[in-house]
Amino acid sequence: MKVKVGRKILDANEMYAEKNSNIFAKNKILCLNMISSPGSGKTTILTRTIEELKGEVKIGVIEGDIATELDARRIRRTGAPAVQINTEGACHLSAAQVNEAVRKMPVKKLDLIFIENVGNLICPTAFELGETGKIGVLSVAEGDDKPAKYPAIFAMAKAVLINKIDLLKIKAVDFDVEKVKRSIRRLNKRMAIFEVSAKTGEGFSNWSKWLVEQSRQLKDRSVKIII
Amino acid sequence: MKVKVGRKILDANEMYAEKNSNIFAKNKILCLNMISSPGSGKTTILTRTIEELKGEVKIGVIEGDIATELDARRIRRTGAPAVQINTEGACHLSAAQVNEAVRKMPVKKLDLIFIENVGNLICPTAFELGETGKIGVLSVAEGDDKPAKYPAIFAMAKAVLINKIDLLKIKAVDFDVEKVKRSIRRLNKRMAIFEVSAKTGEGFSNWSKWLVEQSRQLKDRSVKIII
Repeated sequence: MKVKVGRKILDANEMYAEKNSNIFAKNKILCLNMISSPGSGKTTILTRTIEELKGEVKIGVIEGDIATELDARRIRRTGAPAVQINTEGACHLSAAQVNEAVRKMPVKKLDLIFIENVGNLICPTAFELGETGKIGVLSVAEGDDKPAKYPAIFAMAKAVLINKIDLLKIKAVDFDVEKVKRSIRRLNKRMAIFEVSAKTGEGFSNWSKWLVEQSRQLKDRSVKIII
Repeated sequence: MKVKVGRKILDANEMYAEKNSNIFAKNKILCLNMISSPGSGKTTILTRTIEELKGEVKIGVIEGDIATELDARRIRRTGAPAVQINTEGACHLSAAQVNEAVRKMPVKKLDLIFIENVGNLICPTAFELGETGKIGVLSVAEGDDKPAKYPAIFAMAKAVLINKIDLLKIKAVDFDVEKVKRSIRRLNKRMAIFEVSAKTGEGFSNWSKWLVEQSRQLKDRSVKIII
C-alpha cells in the first residue's frame, strides 16, 4: 500500500533546516552559508566585511570546523558574536548543529548571520542549513579550472567571491578572471560575482553594497508578508 | 548467536582495496594516494615529477575528479599513461573505481602509480584504496593553520608536500613554514616534509630522491618476500 501525503516527509536535516529558516524569517535575518575549499580566505573575508559594515548591518557568525576554535576567536576580535561548531571529523555542517548554534546567538539583535561552513568545496553543497542563500568563495591561488571541476557550489550560490586578487597584480599566480566568470555564468547565468582581496580591501565596497541591499530586500519582503 | 570468524569481514570498499593492494604487490608497484584541497597543485606536482624521473622511475597516474578530463589530459601530455575517473559528484575516490582504472593501466611496465584523489582535504582520508601510502599536499596560499584544522591527512600521510613556496619568496602570502612543520610533527613525529614549488621546480630534487628510494625499498622487500 502506498500512503500519499500532501506534504513531503522531511528527513532530520531538512526538519532542522526548516526550523532554522523559520528563526531567520521571524527575526528578519539574512543568513548566508559560505562554502569554499580550505584556505580560500573565508574568515578573513568575514572579519573585513564585519569592519566595513559596522554601524550599518549587525553581523553574527557561526563557524564550522573539524577541530579548533581558531576562526571563532578571530571573528570575536572584531566585536561580533561568533559560535564555533566542531564537527569532530565530519566534512560539512548539519542543520541540527546550526540550530544548536543559532540558539546561542543574540538573534533579536542581528541583521545578518554568516555560516562559515567546513572548508570543503563539495560535501557542504548537499546539506541545506535553512540559510537564505549560499556564497561560494574561490581564491585565485586555486586555479581557474575549479568551477568546471567542482560545479555544484558555482551553480547553487547566490553570489561568488573571487578572493586574493592582490596576487594577480603581482603576477604571483596564473588565473584568468574572465575565463572563470564565463565558466561560472555557464552554470548560473545571473550569478553576482565579486572580485575582492580580503587582505587589501580591494573590491569590498561592491560586496558590502550588495549585502546591504540583500538585507534591505529581505526586511522589505518580511514587512509585506506581515501586512 | 554470535559467529566468530578468524578473518575480519571486509566491506565492499576494503575488499576492492585489498584487490588493488595485491595487484600493486604482485607487480612491485609503489602506489601513492595524493590528498589535498582543490587547487593545491597536485596535477602540476605530478607533471613535474614525471619529467624529473623520466628514464629512472616509470610512472602512471589515476586521476580522480567530480567532472571533466582536464587533469588526465595534462598528465598524458608528459607521455605518461593516465586514466581519468569521474565521480559524478562524489567527494572521494572508492577502491572499486580505482580497481576499474588499474585494469586499464599497463601495470607490468610501471614502477609507481600516483592516484590523484578528488580535491578534498577531508573525505578521501576515510577510504583506503589499496595504496602503499598517502601523500598530503598543502599550498602556502591556504594558510598555516590547516594541519591543526584538518588533522587527518597530516596524521596519516607517508609524506607531506608544502607547495607554491615561490609565493613566499615574493612575500605574496603570510605562511610560517616552521609553524606548519611543528604542527604536522605534533600529529606525526617522523613525517617526511618537502618544501617545493611545482611551478619553478625548487625542492624537487629531494622529493624525487625520496620517491626513488621508496620505490627501491619496495622492490627489495618484494624480492625478499618471493625468496
